[in-house]
Amino acid sequence: MVKVSVIGATGYAGAELLSILHRHPQATLAHITSESHTGKKISELYPHLRGLCDMTLESLSDIVNIGKDSDFIFIALPHGHAMDAGLKLDALPVRIIDLGADYRFADTAVYEEWYKVPHIHKDADRVYGLAEIYRAQIRDAKIIGNAGCFTTASILALAPLVKHHLIDAGSIIVDAASGVSGAGRGLKLGNHFPELYDNFKAYNVAHHRHTPEIEQALEDLGGEKTVINFTPHLVPMSRGILATCYAKLNENVGADMIDAAFQKMYGSEKFIRLLGRDAYPETKFVRGSNYCDLGWHIDDRTRRVIILSAIDNLVKGAAGQAVQNFNIAAGFHESVALDVVPIYP
Amino acid sequence: MVKVSVIGATGYAGAELLSILHRHPQATLAHITSESHTGKKISELYPHLRGLCDMTLESLSDIVNIGKDSDFIFIALPHGHAMDAGLKLDALPVRIIDLGADYRFADTAVYEEWYKVPHIHKDADRVYGLAEIYRAQIRDAKIIGNAGCFTTASILALAPLVKHHLIDAGSIIVDAASGVSGAGRGLKLGNHFPELYDNFKAYNVAHHRHTPEIEQALEDLGGEKTVINFTPHLVPMSRGILATCYAKLNENVGADMIDAAFQKMYGSEKFIRLLGRDAYPETKFVRGSNYCDLGWHIDDRTRRVIILSAIDNLVKGAAGQAVQNFNIAAGFHESVALDVVPIYP
Amino acid sequence: MVKVSVIGATGYAGAELLSILHRHPQATLAHITSESHTGKKISELYPHLRGLCDMTLESLSDIVNIGKDSDFIFIALPHGHAMDAGLKLDALPVRIIDLGADYRFADTAVYEEWYKVPHIHKDADRVYGLAEIYRAQIRDAKIIGNAGCFTTASILALAPLVKHHLIDAGSIIVDAASGVSGAGRGLKLGNHFPELYDNFKAYNVAHHRHTPEIEQALEDLGGEKTVINFTPHLVPMSRGILATCYAKLNENVGADMIDAAFQKMYGSEKFIRLLGRDAYPETKFVRGSNYCDLGWHIDDRTRRVIILSAIDNLVKGAAGQAVQNFNIAAGFHESVALDVVPIYP
Amino acid sequence: MVKVSVIGATGYAGAELLSILHRHPQATLAHITSESHTGKKISELYPHLRGLCDMTLESLSDIVNIGKDSDFIFIALPHGHAMDAGLKLDALPVRIIDLGADYRFADTAVYEEWYKVPHIHKDADRVYGLAEIYRAQIRDAKIIGNAGCFTTASILALAPLVKHHLIDAGSIIVDAASGVSGAGRGLKLGNHFPELYDNFKAYNVAHHRHTPEIEQALEDLGGEKTVINFTPHLVPMSRGILATCYAKLNENVGADMIDAAFQKMYGSEKFIRLLGRDAYPETKFVRGSNYCDLGWHIDDRTRRVIILSAIDNLVKGAAGQAVQNFNIAAGFHESVALDVVPIYP
Repeated sequence: MVKVSVIGATGYAGAELLSILHRHPQATLAHITSESHTGKKISELYPHLRGLCDMTLESLSDIVNIGKDSDFIFIALPHGHAMDAGLKLDALPVRIIDLGADYRFADTAVYEEWYKVPHIHKDADRVYGLAEIYRAQIRDAKIIGNAGCFTTASILALAPLVKHHLIDAGSIIVDAASGVSGAGRGLKLGNHFPELYDNFKAYNVAHHRHTPEIEQALEDLGGEKTVINFTPHLVPMSRGILATCYAKLNENVGADMIDAAFQKMYGSEKFIRLLGRDAYPETKFVRGSNYCDLGWHIDDRTRRVIILSAIDNLVKGAAGQAVQNFNIAAGFHESVALDVVPIYP
Repeated sequence: MVKVSVIGATGYAGAELLSILHRHPQATLAHITSESHTGKKISELYPHLRGLCDMTLESLSDIVNIGKDSDFIFIALPHGHAMDAGLKLDALPVRIIDLGADYRFADTAVYEEWYKVPHIHKDADRVYGLAEIYRAQIRDAKIIGNAGCFTTASILALAPLVKHHLIDAGSIIVDAASGVSGAGRGLKLGNHFPELYDNFKAYNVAHHRHTPEIEQALEDLGGEKTVINFTPHLVPMSRGILATCYAKLNENVGADMIDAAFQKMYGSEKFIRLLGRDAYPETKFVRGSNYCDLGWHIDDRTRRVIILSAIDNLVKGAAGQAVQNFNIAAGFHESVALDVVPIYP
Repeated sequence: MVKVSVIGATGYAGAELLSILHRHPQATLAHITSESHTGKKISELYPHLRGLCDMTLESLSDIVNIGKDSDFIFIALPHGHAMDAGLKLDALPVRIIDLGADYRFADTAVYEEWYKVPHIHKDADRVYGLAEIYRAQIRDAKIIGNAGCFTTASILALAPLVKHHLIDAGSIIVDAASGVSGAGRGLKLGNHFPELYDNFKAYNVAHHRHTPEIEQALEDLGGEKTVINFTPHLVPMSRGILATCYAKLNENVGADMIDAAFQKMYGSEKFIRLLGRDAYPETKFVRGSNYCDLGWHIDDRTRRVIILSAIDNLVKGAAGQAVQNFNIAAGFHESVALDVVPIYP
Repeated sequence: MVKVSVIGATGYAGAELLSILHRHPQATLAHITSESHTGKKISELYPHLRGLCDMTLESLSDIVNIGKDSDFIFIALPHGHAMDAGLKLDALPVRIIDLGADYRFADTAVYEEWYKVPHIHKDADRVYGLAEIYRAQIRDAKIIGNAGCFTTASILALAPLVKHHLIDAGSIIVDAASGVSGAGRGLKLGNHFPELYDNFKAYNVAHHRHTPEIEQALEDLGGEKTVINFTPHLVPMSRGILATCYAKLNENVGADMIDAAFQKMYGSEKFIRLLGRDAYPETKFVRGSNYCDLGWHIDDRTRRVIILSAIDNLVKGAAGQAVQNFNIAAGFHESVALDVVPIYP
């Protein structure tokens, strides 16, 4: 049994992690932490866990001892806090899977520009935690910077076409929509039920922090500087992301080449379901699961390809992906604890 | 491996059964049927099952051969059809778990009165399929008449108090509310999205067919004639039932006696979570799981007890309960394939 | 033109008042107040009002001058604050319509028992503001204690039957459900979007403060001590209340007598729509309007009558009722500014 | 009083028309029709209209007599049927406002290509019914082809920039999302409550019929051939459209020029609210009203402008716009019956 701990267990991603780890036959939970609820049982905060996970929340002030007592540590804290923990754990053999942004960027200057905080752990041995693209490096990295939710949906949608140079990187627009759990459990007026119900809106246009993360992966894949537009929207539902991605087809690129690129890159991927050309992924078809469903459409009038990508933001977009990365890093079968049927309707 | 088939696999309960059976390590799916979609793959009708269950739907016209090729048959057909199948399968060793109403009533005259169809299989070897109350009989019955969704929530809420004669059976009122999946996948204006969204209503006041089913179980438990009011409501959500049950306390009955009755009856039940006195179950705390969460409140001003009971109508109220019954009947551990964490939020 | 002011304009009921008053041809808005947002425009807090109502919020510290500059003052503050204002305005000719609980009770001891604060304005010249029942007194009272939302739906449902002694007052149970706007604009975890969406729950069982308010009106109507059960539920929608009311029919009471009682009491009421026996009001049929829709059902098996009552909690349950009371008190036609078609779907 | 009739009154747009016309002081309803519900009262089909509009539905088989008895006829039928009625009414003085697509295209070949039916009334005296752009022609046209819902939101967002040549017409992408009422009252599985609730999806990618309608208006405004991408999505809510529009800024175009273009074109428009640069319209801020709220954002990294546009699809996107056109054509003040406050929350 591998011993794992969850730092920051009381957010939605943390709670989802507990659910997934609960069904993991080779992982045992060592510690869970929360600064604002230290001493409470997690099931007091999340009654759906009653009788399933009633562990008591500790403080992370003792992070070094938690690190000594764990083989893997999942961190689900707001950005800026994970690198502090990472630094303190640097000398220990424990490995880290951070669900936040601190370890996502190869170039920490990009992180500092978009997140407005100095990076204090620039030389960390880290890898970007999107298994379908960085699997080999995930196996051995000390720290895995788990990919973000919008970014996972967007990168997976565009990767085959960028990698095979089928689209014009300068023409990429990602228009995406997320359920409200993506905004976390913290209270704010915009997520107060009556304000959001029966409502739809965009936010953070032109400056959402997932933008440079998508660009970084596309640059890795395509080998050229890539600047995109990314626009997030909020859907009045709890879970799910749909990314609608637009790009100009390069000259002489036909539909078959698009189809072939998706097949080649994802044909053997367990968690990517290729619904095919002219298909329509829906967020509900992946709810509660680690799948990314992909469909794509070619518009001959405008010579654009439109790719649709659906994930559950808390699973493939957060906790599921984290466990997928954990499985890779720990040497388990990649789908352990993740082989679940989406819940429908 | 036990071979199971699902007759009527394309309704919501049928699809949920496929999801649960998919994770059952000791059951293998032999046949699935649909009359309106014979020849199609189930995953064409339910894309969330793509890659997980792509079996082809057969017709039930060959029910006898299906019966020969199965150890257990789950039937998820509208009432009136299961008894036809049951009759044809009577001579075979195959056992039946019917999710409809045909085999729920000990007295088929009650069935005929409320369902307005003649019962054609009156001497069937059958038991009412609510495991927490009829477990012993479920083990051996040829046919298990799986309890209904509202009825499960209601009976489990009231059973300990009726059994121990703590409440006045003549005073029982059950006011319940269900998500829309309970109304099935068939199209009708009342369940058209814009009509139901942002809306709340009652239906079938004073004549919903779950009424006599609740009464039958309460009479079994309390040993006296019981006539109740049952009022269902429709909540603009997909899944979940909350039953709010009212009854007059008998003389000299105090809070401790109520608490003790719940503890005594359900203290060791795997799928009943006693949240306790003054607690508030919520449908979301049990979503996707086989739990029934119970809380109760005592009003000293009116000498009434109010019991709140929450289930997922498609799991504990249908497919989960069916698999629980199957596990009992097949001799497996009762929670095989049902030991899942509710999905939240 | 009558000059009106709104004290506490930034809650949902306050904002709804501004919408209704905006279309009132005989009222002009003099002052609007907010302590937490003094100096801001109301349309900054409620962008739907942009260009329609851009008034600046004042502090109520100057309540006496506001009172001097107003013919009517609407108060939409949490309970306990209106009586403070009422006391200060006692000597002025201005009349008050309070949307909170401070002036709802004839017996201030009941208020103090349920609201846990001392009443400081016991001798106020006041009336309970439910127009269909207390119309005559509303005309001249200095202060109108506008009826609560659940109470309006419940009292209107039961009034004809209690008044004509057709039901057993001791048997009354009101099981009601409300959209979330009824809980106000203040942030709390229970009303955070992901917690409530796709969820249904009860709250304040056996001790909700609308209980004694319903009892007071029923006692006025029936002339006998009345103790009821009232159970509120929260529906994942923005607006709307449905009350499902149960009572035992008195001996020899038949369906026609029930029908007649409703007709007699409400036959000429503008804002009560009698859908009739066996009918099903839905909250969406009254959304955005001042209507109370009523339907009733008789269960011969249990000798109970079940009355269904639907209102928009922010209109007939709050701001619309306040303007209806205002119209009566100011001598206008009762439906001025309230003659709107419900918004559907 | 002007006499108006509504052909096809039982769809959502037809019912919304009845609501708006109900409060129009200068219009009186002469006839309403439905082929599938002839002889019924409209309030049987739409109980929210009970007591407000209880007119009986006639058949349109008698369209000529209805035409003789009306000054204006609103047609809310599926495409292909209005031109049949229009042809029959050609010789009468009655004027027509068609809410469908039959009269929206100057070039009927475009209509025939996208709608796959022959146009049978090619020489109709018609105008495109988007008041803010075609107001002058609306005054006198015999037939007004009321603009579509997505198209209204999209054209109003892009018009100032296209007209002043501030953006590259070849770079336009409109990514839009609509509530479900836009799909009508007809039953289909995709709009069955449990399928759509808690779900988000795109549809008709690259071939939605509103595409050529947007292109036609942009070509009128910009004077050049325009081919765009338009992608609709379905939001799990009843009403509202948000269009997110992308375009490349032309060289040397700065933010001030963008701001000025919006001000110049819409500064005096009653129903367009300019929320300004960096602002976020939300569908809920316009619900139930005839407003189009606009906000825009400039991305210096990509040199794109992103315009956000929110309307109520049934009001400004259908019935409200129709009445706005009617007011212009009949010589009334443009905002009669449309001067309502959005309903919030």
